[in-house]
Amino acid sequence: MSPVRDFASDNNAGVHPDVLRAIAEANTGHVRAYGHDAYTEAAEAAFRAEFGAETSVFFVWNGTAANVLGLQAVTRPYNAVICAEGSHISVDECGAPERFTGCKLLTVSTRDGKLRPADLDALLTGLGDEHRVQPRVVSVTQATELGTVYRAGELRALADAAHVRGLLVHLDGARIANAAASLELPLRAVTADAGVDIVSFGGTKNGLLGAEAVLFLNGLAVPEFMYLRKQGTQLASKMRFLAAQLAALLRDELWRRNAAHANAMARRLAERVRELRRVRLTQPVEANGVFATIPPETIAPLQARRFFTVWNPGTSEVRWMTAWDTTEDDVDAFAADIREVVG
Amino acid sequence: MSPVRDFASDNNAGVHPDVLRAIAEANTGHVRAYGHDAYTEAAEAAFRAEFGAETSVFFVWNGTAANVLGLQAVTRPYNAVICAEGSHISVDECGAPERFTGCKLLTVSTRDGKLRPADLDALLTGLGDEHRVQPRVVSVTQATELGTVYRAGELRALADAAHVRGLLVHLDGARIANAAASLELPLRAVTADAGVDIVSFGGTKNGLLGAEAVLFLNGLAVPEFMYLRKQGTQLASKMRFLAAQLAALLRDELWRRNAAHANAMARRLAERVRELRRVRLTQPVEANGVFATIPPETIAPLQARRFFTVWNPGTSEVRWMTAWDTTEDDVDAFAADIREVVG
Amino acid sequence: MSPVRDFASDNNAGVHPDVLRAIAEANTGHVRAYGHDAYTEAAEAAFRAEFGAETSVFFVWNGTAANVLGLQAVTRPYNAVICAEGSHISVDECGAPERFTGCKLLTVSTRDGKLRPADLDALLTGLGDEHRVQPRVVSVTQATELGTVYRAGELRALADAAHVRGLLVHLDGARIANAAASLELPLRAVTADAGVDIVSFGGTKNGLLGAEAVLFLNGLAVPEFMYLRKQGTQLASKMRFLAAQLAALLRDELWRRNAAHANAMARRLAERVRELRRVRLTQPVEANGVFATIPPETIAPLQARRFFTVWNPGTSEVRWMTAWDTTEDDVDAFAADIREVVG
Amino acid sequence: MSPVRDFASDNNAGVHPDVLRAIAEANTGHVRAYGHDAYTEAAEAAFRAEFGAETSVFFVWNGTAANVLGLQAVTRPYNAVICAEGSHISVDECGAPERFTGCKLLTVSTRDGKLRPADLDALLTGLGDEHRVQPRVVSVTQATELGTVYRAGELRALADAAHVRGLLVHLDGARIANAAASLELPLRAVTADAGVDIVSFGGTKNGLLGAEAVLFLNGLAVPEFMYLRKQGTQLASKMRFLAAQLAALLRDELWRRNAAHANAMARRLAERVRELRRVRLTQPVEANGVFATIPPETIAPLQARRFFTVWNPGTSEVRWMTAWDTTEDDVDAFAADIREVVG
Repeated sequence: MSPVRDFASDNNAGVHPDVLRAIAEANTGHVRAYGHDAYTEAAEAAFRAEFGAETSVFFVWNGTAANVLGLQAVTRPYNAVICAEGSHISVDECGAPERFTGCKLLTVSTRDGKLRPADLDALLTGLGDEHRVQPRVVSVTQATELGTVYRAGELRALADAAHVRGLLVHLDGARIANAAASLELPLRAVTADAGVDIVSFGGTKNGLLGAEAVLFLNGLAVPEFMYLRKQGTQLASKMRFLAAQLAALLRDELWRRNAAHANAMARRLAERVRELRRVRLTQPVEANGVFATIPPETIAPLQARRFFTVWNPGTSEVRWMTAWDTTEDDVDAFAADIREVVG
Repeated sequence: MSPVRDFASDNNAGVHPDVLRAIAEANTGHVRAYGHDAYTEAAEAAFRAEFGAETSVFFVWNGTAANVLGLQAVTRPYNAVICAEGSHISVDECGAPERFTGCKLLTVSTRDGKLRPADLDALLTGLGDEHRVQPRVVSVTQATELGTVYRAGELRALADAAHVRGLLVHLDGARIANAAASLELPLRAVTADAGVDIVSFGGTKNGLLGAEAVLFLNGLAVPEFMYLRKQGTQLASKMRFLAAQLAALLRDELWRRNAAHANAMARRLAERVRELRRVRLTQPVEANGVFATIPPETIAPLQARRFFTVWNPGTSEVRWMTAWDTTEDDVDAFAADIREVVG
Repeated sequence: MSPVRDFASDNNAGVHPDVLRAIAEANTGHVRAYGHDAYTEAAEAAFRAEFGAETSVFFVWNGTAANVLGLQAVTRPYNAVICAEGSHISVDECGAPERFTGCKLLTVSTRDGKLRPADLDALLTGLGDEHRVQPRVVSVTQATELGTVYRAGELRALADAAHVRGLLVHLDGARIANAAASLELPLRAVTADAGVDIVSFGGTKNGLLGAEAVLFLNGLAVPEFMYLRKQGTQLASKMRFLAAQLAALLRDELWRRNAAHANAMARRLAERVRELRRVRLTQPVEANGVFATIPPETIAPLQARRFFTVWNPGTSEVRWMTAWDTTEDDVDAFAADIREVVG
Repeated sequence: MSPVRDFASDNNAGVHPDVLRAIAEANTGHVRAYGHDAYTEAAEAAFRAEFGAETSVFFVWNGTAANVLGLQAVTRPYNAVICAEGSHISVDECGAPERFTGCKLLTVSTRDGKLRPADLDALLTGLGDEHRVQPRVVSVTQATELGTVYRAGELRALADAAHVRGLLVHLDGARIANAAASLELPLRAVTADAGVDIVSFGGTKNGLLGAEAVLFLNGLAVPEFMYLRKQGTQLASKMRFLAAQLAALLRDELWRRNAAHANAMARRLAERVRELRRVRLTQPVEANGVFATIPPETIAPLQARRFFTVWNPGTSEVRWMTAWDTTEDDVDAFAADIREVVG
């Protein structure tokens, strides 16, 4: 099985060595199952140190689970969730949000994957009308599915607009580390301090084996979440190994180092190909993804060099993702491939 | 964090070194996410080698997920699932089976955790009556929650009775390895060859970090299961690490070695305390659990030595579980504790 | 189509003439749909006059809907509902309660269909344990499915026991009129004043075409119920016709007259057959049902005279139901049939 | 309570006298509950006579129920339903379709409420991809929510396109009578013979008290639908009264007479106001609704004369609905109102 690194997805990368070591170190003797153990307590404390003392912390296995359980915790089935048209919860989770919450997703067409305060009112016309679903949450993705990043002020403005309208703000943070690294801000600055209420904190894409956290911020109380997690099949019996992964990620800002590196690799790739005549970057490169259009006939030959994803077949737009383990050599080699194949 | 091994749960044990090594060995370069990788293919092939070529194999993170998704795959919400009164799906999964499937669970009171063919007909009186839920599946646990083990012939008889009545058989195999080891039979003999249709294959309690498999046996077709798994939040992005764990468990029958050892430790413990006047074993010790009544006032002092679970406070029944890593010294020391405290 | 009245079910009876007249009287011109009309306001006011000013009133079509929506309004999917083993919600609604609420039903074996305070604690052992469903509601049926009636004091004691334990009390009142008539009490005395929190008020069995009410009593606030009703497919567009039926039932205590008559017919039937050697009454006749065992070979011939239901084939127990339109002649003729056929 | 007829909704109209008479005629003696009666059999036969012998017929109370249960019968929760952006199932049922089916609704922006074959492919890009919901049904509304009507050939073309792609066709026929009357075709010509698979047959808007039918056409087998209906709270105990209403509607084409009249009233209204300078009709008037823009400041004063609904506040578009009981005098008086107020 080949050690080649492609540009398809940060999910294709493996586990950071520090994380694997943390798993091994937690593998000693018996500890109580289901999170009643010192590893879990320590990891929860690390999250509170990062996001504020008034944070409720719950570990789950993956991002879809974090999203749907976090949303279920604050909704009833007649509610609706406002999100961007191409958001992961809307298009890439096989309807899991609808299935778990019962809610309808109300989508907003965006240019760059970002919601704005002005988008809300058009979706709030049926408030109090029993024939209409009742919006309860605005869900944003940070960094977005298009590799863009909300500024802290943008989040703050959106959260203020949401709160004024009685809506909560959920942040799908599958790549929250990439966003915070990009902005050179603490995690808290782009979540709790920006008015976000619920975070799906992503770890897997950033060097973990499989562990994410659902965070309820600023004292938002969801006493029943532990039941939703268990009933939602996401209570790990050997929780210490999820906790150990996440603690390792928070330790000495490994999350930032991994993410900043991935971001730098994406910028490097963008720089290397920006001037190519037949490559057109379609989004600003603010996190670890490069979106570009290339001639359709060049896609397959280029994929044969290093695999990547076609984002929009209609416009011949492709997505090149970097990861915590992408090297400068990988980037330079791939840039050379692009130059050769696309020209 | 102490290396002491208690007798509370096989979930409290850690990860077998071979499994941790397999994870590390799979941690090389990029592979396609979501199970489109060689590790997953190899692990699936290993399952087919073990359970028959006509087996459909899907990996998930935990046993609750395996159970509810396996049941959802073959039911509609107006169906019912027949199971034992104290079965894990009925009492220990926070209602996840009802929530995911919509089905009602129809429970049978049992002495030893085992369903028998004669139990079925009393629950089938409303067939074809639209006011009644329609039984579709019989779910058994092997080894049972009471540490007993169905003989292959018992399963076969139950499966025949179920099939004749139009019911499928699901086996919650959180401890299927302990059962097969106890019976000195191949896994296939107590599943596919005994007429079982769907298996939740347990790995976590038997030395994995967190990985289980849903198996559809003997050609049972569930083409849509991949959607149910994704929508059910159980599609791992870094699937190779689940596959690596399970492949390690199947390799050279590590599953049997781990389980046989745990079983032997339970038998050893039972032997050491069987003659104690105030200890009464309540179930035959056929897998890795010892169930016994001890005087109520001795429970807390004994728990202070090594932790374990009270199974039934009303009858002062306790459960002592062994695991793949329980040592003879652990057993002997705990038996001495019991002798001292219970007398 | 024959005008014969059988003893199978009060659901087999038709519509009381006063009710049909009320429907016709409401059939004039246009009124706003979905309950924003004067008929609905008037009917709601009539319910508040009967059950207390602090009652929230919602009309639906049938009893299953009233039950499942009332329960959904006060539960989350990880909750459980405590009810009697043979209760309608548990056995006769095709799993609708589980499907709508996600909750598990925890059943209590009873002799007479009635729950008692002492039944609760055995089902509350897992409180606060995330692996267990969390009981939230005690659901009683009044009159019970076995034709028995809770005394007001029995309900009060059960409600007090429930409330002390943090549980709400739901009353399936498909035959609440029969119970109140039997006890010669106002409706309020066996509901709001007895501590009941939620009532499914039954009208259909008592002379309506099809209309029931969900009542939240004593100020219990469920502001979102209107959404649950709509999303639950139970918001009638021509609501005035449900309102007109229910208002007719409350007017001049038509509910009591209908129910008292049905009850009297059941008592008359019981009196007529009580002394028969081969008829054994199995329950006190407190509402409009007579439960009795008769020799199995007499069932079919007797059904051929006037149809009725076999309640328990195993014990040869049958159920004879009277309705608002059962006449003394019907009873006497059927009693003669029983005398002839059963002897 | 005033007999004035407004132009707000055909749901605001009452019950046709023939229907009320049919209810009264069915109100004789006892018949078996839950549809096991001669009235129900006769009504089912009438539907088969109308829609084809290979039709499965189920009665429910309202249109939302017909829609969600019909869709649930042919989907699994990971499926999706394709429909128009403003369709009733998408915007006016408080998320009931998502809640009952688990499915996501994929909407198509339309000018006139009608889907076209060319709309399908853009929504079928993720077939076979487990991350994406899997479209299974195309749902159309006939007549549409915008008062337009699919021609039989348009439906046929859409159904052919759907079937070729493995999709079924569901028709929300809340106003199917208005459509068939408008086209001067039999009901069958715009449903079964046009390739439609499932119909929600609407009766309530067309003169019933409250009754609709779910029809599975051309032999489509859904043997389990009776369970879905019961579990979905839509099995009427006194089914004969739903059956009597629907049978009355089918008798001597009462459905067509009612609908043709309503359509004629809408056309009359359109003719009366078409030439007004400040009234602009926004849709062809093909059924019983007139859509028009009028100056915003005239809306409230005009509503004070006879009530109607604002369809789109942004564009000052209003909806004027006629019903089976709208008279020529009503239309002429309202047209005069419009002339006076809007000018």
